Amino acid sequence: MGKEVGKILGKEFGMEYILRIDVGRREFRKERVVQEDLLIGGRGLSAKILGQEVNPMCHPFDPGNKLVIAPGLLAGTMAPSFGRISVGAKSPLTKGIKEANAGGTAAQKLDRMGIKAVVIEGEWQENQFWGVRIGQEGCEFFSADKLAGKKNYEVAASLRDRFGEKVAVVSIGPGGEMRMAAATVAVTDQEGRPSRHAARGGLGAVMGSKGIKAIVIDDSGASRVEIKDTEAFRKAVQSLVEALKADKGIPRGNSTFGTPGGVGFVNTLGSMPTRNYRSGSFEQAENFFGQTIKEINTRRGGTMHGCMPGCVIQCSIVFHGEDGGHITSAFEYETIVMMGSNLGIGDLDAIARMDRLCDELGLDTIETGSAIAQAMEAGALRFGDAEEVRKALEEIGKGSPLGRILGQGAAFTAQAFGLKRVPSVLGQAIPAHDPRVCKPVGVTYATSPMGADHTAGIDYRDSLSREGQVQKSKNAQIFMAAMDSVGYCMLALPTRQPTIYPIIADLLNARYGLALTAEDIHKLGVKTIQEELIFNRKAGIDPQRDYLPEFLKTEPLPPKNAVFDIPREEIEAIWQAL
Amino acid sequence: MGKEVGKILGKEFGMEYILRIDVGRREFRKERVVQEDLLIGGRGLSAKILGQEVNPMCHPFDPGNKLVIAPGLLAGTMAPSFGRISVGAKSPLTKGIKEANAGGTAAQKLDRMGIKAVVIEGEWQENQFWGVRIGQEGCEFFSADKLAGKKNYEVAASLRDRFGEKVAVVSIGPGGEMRMAAATVAVTDQEGRPSRHAARGGLGAVMGSKGIKAIVIDDSGASRVEIKDTEAFRKAVQSLVEALKADKGIPRGNSTFGTPGGVGFVNTLGSMPTRNYRSGSFEQAENFFGQTIKEINTRRGGTMHGCMPGCVIQCSIVFHGEDGGHITSAFEYETIVMMGSNLGIGDLDAIARMDRLCDELGLDTIETGSAIAQAMEAGALRFGDAEEVRKALEEIGKGSPLGRILGQGAAFTAQAFGLKRVPSVLGQAIPAHDPRVCKPVGVTYATSPMGADHTAGIDYRDSLSREGQVQKSKNAQIFMAAMDSVGYCMLALPTRQPTIYPIIADLLNARYGLALTAEDIHKLGVKTIQEELIFNRKAGIDPQRDYLPEFLKTEPLPPKNAVFDIPREEIEAIWQAL
Repeated sequence: MGKEVGKILGKEFGMEYILRIDVGRREFRKERVVQEDLLIGGRGLSAKILGQEVNPMCHPFDPGNKLVIAPGLLAGTMAPSFGRISVGAKSPLTKGIKEANAGGTAAQKLDRMGIKAVVIEGEWQENQFWGVRIGQEGCEFFSADKLAGKKNYEVAASLRDRFGEKVAVVSIGPGGEMRMAAATVAVTDQEGRPSRHAARGGLGAVMGSKGIKAIVIDDSGASRVEIKDTEAFRKAVQSLVEALKADKGIPRGNSTFGTPGGVGFVNTLGSMPTRNYRSGSFEQAENFFGQTIKEINTRRGGTMHGCMPGCVIQCSIVFHGEDGGHITSAFEYETIVMMGSNLGIGDLDAIARMDRLCDELGLDTIETGSAIAQAMEAGALRFGDAEEVRKALEEIGKGSPLGRILGQGAAFTAQAFGLKRVPSVLGQAIPAHDPRVCKPVGVTYATSPMGADHTAGIDYRDSLSREGQVQKSKNAQIFMAAMDSVGYCMLALPTRQPTIYPIIADLLNARYGLALTAEDIHKLGVKTIQEELIFNRKAGIDPQRDYLPEFLKTEPLPPKNAVFDIPREEIEAIWQAL
Repeated sequence: MGKEVGKILGKEFGMEYILRIDVGRREFRKERVVQEDLLIGGRGLSAKILGQEVNPMCHPFDPGNKLVIAPGLLAGTMAPSFGRISVGAKSPLTKGIKEANAGGTAAQKLDRMGIKAVVIEGEWQENQFWGVRIGQEGCEFFSADKLAGKKNYEVAASLRDRFGEKVAVVSIGPGGEMRMAAATVAVTDQEGRPSRHAARGGLGAVMGSKGIKAIVIDDSGASRVEIKDTEAFRKAVQSLVEALKADKGIPRGNSTFGTPGGVGFVNTLGSMPTRNYRSGSFEQAENFFGQTIKEINTRRGGTMHGCMPGCVIQCSIVFHGEDGGHITSAFEYETIVMMGSNLGIGDLDAIARMDRLCDELGLDTIETGSAIAQAMEAGALRFGDAEEVRKALEEIGKGSPLGRILGQGAAFTAQAFGLKRVPSVLGQAIPAHDPRVCKPVGVTYATSPMGADHTAGIDYRDSLSREGQVQKSKNAQIFMAAMDSVGYCMLALPTRQPTIYPIIADLLNARYGLALTAEDIHKLGVKTIQEELIFNRKAGIDPQRDYLPEFLKTEPLPPKNAVFDIPREEIEAIWQAL
């Protein structure tokens, strides 16, 4: 155990590295970042590395695929809400390029160690699972044989026992080991719980295909991140914090109630998927209202917390049970809808336990919820029956045939059961915003290189209109690509989002000694999407095609009875001028 | 029962019709064939109808998809081996256009009734399955409630009891009802057995999605097919029969031993998939030799027979068991390899029973065999265990979760089990000719609009060389597209294949009163492929891409230890000049 096979990774101030981990040779290699890449991080850096190094036509589990884990550009600084970590690879779900990001503490530690990206590459010999420890004084592979098959909470606890409470753990659950297309990459939060997930696109399966069960990130001994102009940086941070505090809209809502704060709004608007996207509003929605959850949870001793150090929003819900014990952390809107209303289930505690089980197994709650909805649609499970859902999740964990169907996601499950109504784009389940009522996000689902992914660009303004939605989606997609590349959290965005561009420019200038403008931040987003579209075109995914499933265009969604009616030609022109 | 809802379909001499069956309105409509379409049949006509009428981006089970059943151009005449019937649709397996053809008696009857194609279209209400009877005096829908869930042999027997022994039955088994992507469309042979299958591409699932369990074709009362110049026709038929009889090569081999006649050759060459395409030759191959099978079968009272009236080759094996009773008809090379050597099974009787079970359930033996090999690769079943395979087939019939995985084919099963080595192209399993040793067929798999399909163009001449294989595949693909459009059987092809072009021109000229040349027959093939490539491009499948899976290029195949090494650029240029 603990055999050190890697080379020493020393951090030198101002020197940024890419850390390459070859799982075939079990070797580490540090690679100096070239000047032009210094200002690409997170999703942007992942897109660049994958675009340059991975054959878009490869099988996602081919040795040639790579898993890129890249912190945002300001992750290690004291700037709040910049600690997102991007995980990228060719996706086993969408079969295109994919990035999913998460909070937690991993990004900060990597940035503090001068690591711009961890690239997991090479051909695993498939004899046993490995763990990797990345430390300031060196890196090592260690046997993860005893962790194989274990759930994420046990894995994180065991590794924190062994390597110290302060390490960050990036791990996969049984879902990733079984290479399920709904498998996540879990990241520990400030309490050491593996509750933050780079959830979408089955990236956990790619990590599984590389034989890596867990990565331990230990930044003890690392110096603080170098800031070229500390005073300018301090000022920029201050202006960000003030802007967020003064904002009466989104930041305050998320800060008060977390993401369930929006349930009342979307339920009334009618975009909240219910019973397999058959309705946009749920008769038991009140159970999910932000205020309801807060009241119950506070009474039970649950809290709001920041998943990343220094977060001023603290939107994440640490949810407790009736007995006062912890059930799950990061109890989010998407989970509550996709495993709640979309399955006809209104029992909040039951949904919280499903969330925990998904975190344990390392499964995307959106994809898994939608997959279970397909099994319900086919009559294999019953809508509204939380106990059946629990058992179905256990089946996934066991890798039974039913579990292997569900664990591959919604489109796969729909095919297994012969359904023709498939709520997915590029094989990825439509999340908890129905595009018939939130049309801008429908354009995003139809055209994003990420497939059906609300985090790729959502906009609820005047969302039922047919006018201008393509442009809104385009703006939102570029904006989110920029945010994902600097590593800023979408749940901490100011209500008037682009106001953050100049602040980010100021922060980057102060951190790296540059002279960026707000426009340069926008360009980061454009460039990232361009690279992703090129990858996907080479993978056989046409950037000029509307991939939205037909039923959204023909089946009216109650109660608004809206269909998705943005003209195909408009949608397919979205990337013509980028 | 037997309520007549359709309009009368009368045949007028020289009048050719397309019969449209609207499953939503339960109506029939006969549509006069325009002059320019008179000379398109089978696969070519299917490609044209699908190209004009089906949105390539639709879900294969969308109401907008159509199932085209089209006899060849000479099916109803006395010309031998021209009785193939093409079935076409957007495929739930390849997600592109698909044609699969079969023998049996349906094509002759349709042609005799003047029906160039049956087009099943519209939106099924999904309350109950229907049967359709196509008769000379009229057509009708009848309830198939009592047939739902029944296997093909029982369905055919029941319908022949009811409608007369001479009818042809086109039906789906439980596989098609459950919309499995390995589901076939079965056609009865001359003995009334549903042993001929339009097997590939999951077209049975499309028929199932239209709610049609069976089509009964009753040509009683139909006159003979009109021949414009009977004397010229007789002469052309005579020259074909003489050419086949004089041919000492392929026709004689098939005539003597059926398709297993080739086992010795391919096993020695090393292109016979064994244990999930891990080897190209099988230690128990002698069990499968044409001569071995013939000896055993003759002793038991089995026979060779022609699956179509008037066939002079008679390559189809009616296989009997030890007790002298009938086990299965049409016991073919592909089945014997894909359910035999490729599963590590050498027990001929067991394989024959698997073949029968696949015919009963309406499953493609290639796709299903390869799917089971994936489950074996994953350790869920054991290589070499025929009893486990039998049970697995029963699972498919029951629609259990494991059955629903396997019934969706090889690529789907590989994904369910997290495998990265996926022996398929466009989601369709590679048949019983390994492309590492038979390189021309590898080019076909990589580039055919049909996905991995040996019937789309195979050539074993100098098949291990790297030289000229793209051109060979291209020639073979065009040739087969022409044959599939005139409805000629690939198992009755002269050894020097193009010698059949002028004979076909003579036959068509005599039948229809035309002046076609051999070149015109070739052009039929070109036009068909062109239309299919256009459909696929619109469906998101790039005609200029090599879709062959990577492992075939990197993993040497014993005993020849060959890899597939035709340069990608050459392959991707195949359709540049068509």
